[in-house]
Amino acid sequence: MNEFMEAAIAEARASLHEGGIPIGAVLVRNNTIIGRGHNQRVQRNDPLAHAEIECIRNAGRIKTYTGTILYTTLMPCYLCAGAIVQFGIEHIVVGESRTYRGAEDFMKNFWVSIEDWDLDECISLMKDFIQKNPHLWNEDIGRL
Amino acid sequence: MNEFMEAAIAEARASLHEGGIPIGAVLVRNNTIIGRGHNQRVQRNDPLAHAEIECIRNAGRIKTYTGTILYTTLMPCYLCAGAIVQFGIEHIVVGESRTYRGAEDFMKNFWVSIEDWDLDECISLMKDFIQKNPHLWNEDIGRL
Repeated sequence: MNEFMEAAIAEARASLHEGGIPIGAVLVRNNTIIGRGHNQRVQRNDPLAHAEIECIRNAGRIKTYTGTILYTTLMPCYLCAGAIVQFGIEHIVVGESRTYRGAEDFMKNFWVSIEDWDLDECISLMKDFIQKNPHLWNEDIGRL
Repeated sequence: MNEFMEAAIAEARASLHEGGIPIGAVLVRNNTIIGRGHNQRVQRNDPLAHAEIECIRNAGRIKTYTGTILYTTLMPCYLCAGAIVQFGIEHIVVGESRTYRGAEDFMKNFWVSIEDWDLDECISLMKDFIQKNPHLWNEDIGRL
């Protein structure tokens, strides 16, 4: 655990408090958070407002993503992995991939280096949420 | 050419008039446009506001994408292809892929059926824009 993953988890918890899907992310460069965000599908009725997308958007037009590290509480799906590959984010740290395998293989086939910290806190957040809201979770990953 | 690609091109031209990148898209179900959008990187300073993303967002939370067709003036990049794969859009029609190859191979490796209409109008729109704004285009596809 470090301060950046803690910030990503804080984003996930903020989403949960808002009635949303508990996934959070932060983008880091030179040991500084330059963007943060959480899933807003429910809050804004926006099917594309995944945590990583919101986080990258909130970082603004930074031109190049070289040297950035994306921390996210859950293994990214294809939408978010597509953003990571397209913009050349070379290193991601994920809280867990037990509740969702996402697009890990796709990212690894490119140049993305992935650290999976397999954190109990992140696993619990998702497990509890999916158990209580299976329909919402399936909607979020396009599995309805 | 059909009315849906014409609507996608109209979106692209709207972006150009706003000083933005001329790419447009529409999402169609049962021969009806259910979402439309154009690239808004410049207009909203949003690096993730690609045409296909805006179009899918504007369609709202439609739950399932089965039976939808995405029309876009340019072959989708990995970000947009990621959205297409994640949400299960099975059929896309693209205006052209000469000025940008995008993530065609990635989508084909999944179940996405791709029609490339290779339209002079779409090619000219992008060629002219890239020639006048190479920096902006490279920023949009993460190649700065």
